[in-house]
Amino acid sequence: MARPIVTLTTDFGSNDHLVGAMKGVILKVNPDVQIVDISHRVIPYDILDGALTLGQAYRHFPLKTVHIIVVDPGVGTQRRPLLVSGEQHYFVAPDNGVLSMVYEREERLTVRHVTAEHYFLSPLSNTFHGRDIFAPVAAWLTKNGAASSFGDEITDFVRFSMPKPKSANGVVKGVILKVDNFGNAVTNLSVEDVPQLLAGSGQCKVTAGAKPVTKFVQTYSQGEPGEAFALIGSSGFLEISMNRASAAKTLGLQRGAEVTVEVGS
Amino acid sequence: MARPIVTLTTDFGSNDHLVGAMKGVILKVNPDVQIVDISHRVIPYDILDGALTLGQAYRHFPLKTVHIIVVDPGVGTQRRPLLVSGEQHYFVAPDNGVLSMVYEREERLTVRHVTAEHYFLSPLSNTFHGRDIFAPVAAWLTKNGAASSFGDEITDFVRFSMPKPKSANGVVKGVILKVDNFGNAVTNLSVEDVPQLLAGSGQCKVTAGAKPVTKFVQTYSQGEPGEAFALIGSSGFLEISMNRASAAKTLGLQRGAEVTVEVGS
Amino acid sequence: MARPIVTLTTDFGSNDHLVGAMKGVILKVNPDVQIVDISHRVIPYDILDGALTLGQAYRHFPLKTVHIIVVDPGVGTQRRPLLVSGEQHYFVAPDNGVLSMVYEREERLTVRHVTAEHYFLSPLSNTFHGRDIFAPVAAWLTKNGAASSFGDEITDFVRFSMPKPKSANGVVKGVILKVDNFGNAVTNLSVEDVPQLLAGSGQCKVTAGAKPVTKFVQTYSQGEPGEAFALIGSSGFLEISMNRASAAKTLGLQRGAEVTVEVGS
Repeated sequence: MARPIVTLTTDFGSNDHLVGAMKGVILKVNPDVQIVDISHRVIPYDILDGALTLGQAYRHFPLKTVHIIVVDPGVGTQRRPLLVSGEQHYFVAPDNGVLSMVYEREERLTVRHVTAEHYFLSPLSNTFHGRDIFAPVAAWLTKNGAASSFGDEITDFVRFSMPKPKSANGVVKGVILKVDNFGNAVTNLSVEDVPQLLAGSGQCKVTAGAKPVTKFVQTYSQGEPGEAFALIGSSGFLEISMNRASAAKTLGLQRGAEVTVEVGS
Repeated sequence: MARPIVTLTTDFGSNDHLVGAMKGVILKVNPDVQIVDISHRVIPYDILDGALTLGQAYRHFPLKTVHIIVVDPGVGTQRRPLLVSGEQHYFVAPDNGVLSMVYEREERLTVRHVTAEHYFLSPLSNTFHGRDIFAPVAAWLTKNGAASSFGDEITDFVRFSMPKPKSANGVVKGVILKVDNFGNAVTNLSVEDVPQLLAGSGQCKVTAGAKPVTKFVQTYSQGEPGEAFALIGSSGFLEISMNRASAAKTLGLQRGAEVTVEVGS
Repeated sequence: MARPIVTLTTDFGSNDHLVGAMKGVILKVNPDVQIVDISHRVIPYDILDGALTLGQAYRHFPLKTVHIIVVDPGVGTQRRPLLVSGEQHYFVAPDNGVLSMVYEREERLTVRHVTAEHYFLSPLSNTFHGRDIFAPVAAWLTKNGAASSFGDEITDFVRFSMPKPKSANGVVKGVILKVDNFGNAVTNLSVEDVPQLLAGSGQCKVTAGAKPVTKFVQTYSQGEPGEAFALIGSSGFLEISMNRASAAKTLGLQRGAEVTVEVGS
């Protein structure tokens, strides 16, 4: 029988004991769990960045994977701990919107306010619910499989809309959501939202920051040295990229910068 | 039956093959081991930082977990490799004090000088005992469970006292032990050492670096924007923190900086 | 029965969803796989750095380990995906030379062009074959063990020679291959290529960058504070190092810098 899988996504970084403590807590409850790090380098306190990181990874995991995400600037306040049952996966997270991309993508969801304190570590700290609440809740769920034992269903959970492109007069305005390790600037402009992107430079004129990006390619290596270009990336979003160089650095693009697409007729 | 767990804490970083080589050695001896990274970003050569990282994580792991810690500036010299049996866990480490926090917290310990060279990799390098000694010793221990087969007990192992606060004339002096990923400056002032901390600003006047920190809170989000405050963190130590900002950066606090608490009557 | 092992070596970094997505894909195909991170901090696009990282780690892993390496600036072009069967391990990688150190070290190899598209994710992206090709191919291989089912053998795969020292008139010229987390500058000068290195300063005069490095030691801690020295590191290569300090920073040495050894008679 396959071992249960618990993934971790946090903004804790990796230079202290925080992630290790969470892993220990999980394994102490259920030593059969396979723990998988998604990322511990979510931008600190940044709920949108956390939502994107988990949102682009979770669907690739097997049925019944439990995903813990801890980006939790409100730890210790009245914000609720959640256990969410999706169509194929579980999610354990603070109720601050960090699951918004999951809420968008999953058709059927049950969101529970975790109140079953006997699953928590005791004493319970005010500042590290990753260790004291989210880790043991996920681990106990892998043992008993009974989401309903953790708390009652709620419907007033916190969610925000992922940033959507805005369209007016043939111009679609989006933003850069993320700069990846290669300096690719990933936007929120998807093919679903802007189908003309599939036609490339024939129908679209892209401006990123104040810079025009006139070329569309299919793969990174089609770019000439020093040339920025647009392409549709692996999550379906428009990216501004360069071949073996950082487009973000070269063009001075940061997260939140505006990217516009003028859509031709 | 649960799989044996081996944790890794090192100062090797993650941009080369060193950690991977250790993992391979462990799995070659015992492919059933579940390897758990605690941190590979201990400050290079910094035995105190290593001691703190492991010391704050190890107790959360299950019975019989084997913890390897390699912060080992004396690798290849006469410093001894150790196998330590605690009340619930094993520790494999160089004899340089990196287990000092374990020695403080565990009531019963057996410390052995590992001399059973048939467990080591051969040829044995002078510069990478993480791969050649510590990894295979931990892995063989998970197979045979017989700590006594690795070497004889010693009592003259190296240990240092974790930095303790000093108290005089109603003033307790501590230091910053660690700045975490959020810029929280974690001190060595614990509630056990300074019980007045529980009463907060009513009884305590905190100065960090040269800066007064007058407010005490329970959770990070109680702070106002731009305001530094004191709170008791998840390991029981006083922290100087801010709400969604780096207190260390804002106040210019680094590891080793003095933090004083004037204790009122 | 031991669980199959799949290792990951990439240049993806760890601040987004890319590595997590690959892990999910592997586990969805075969949830019994034990995934082991070697490094995700290969220098971006740097095939030589990737070759070195995997090349120094893979032999330590157990029989039948599947090693995935993704340093793939040509993703989406005609460059082929490969499945390589070595004497003891399997390798899944783009055909761009990133396995060159494996090709050098393994006596018997079968290199296959992976063409069995039914193993790939669908739809197949142009920019993330780590997720869409390499991860599922490795995972399916752990299930069926039949390398031949993935494609036909080829012999015209891309390989480059690892940078070799050049010798003339009693002077051997090498380069710095890597600066590690401690600032050790690891060269390509091995004891096999320059046996006089074993005799140390008695027969060798080392110059790194423009700086003479006159002392040879066996272990890092034999150096005096502030003094750079030469030693033979744990992979058999000459290193320029310091005791508890960064030789690379102190001497201004970077990857690619020349290191010469004048060999005495």
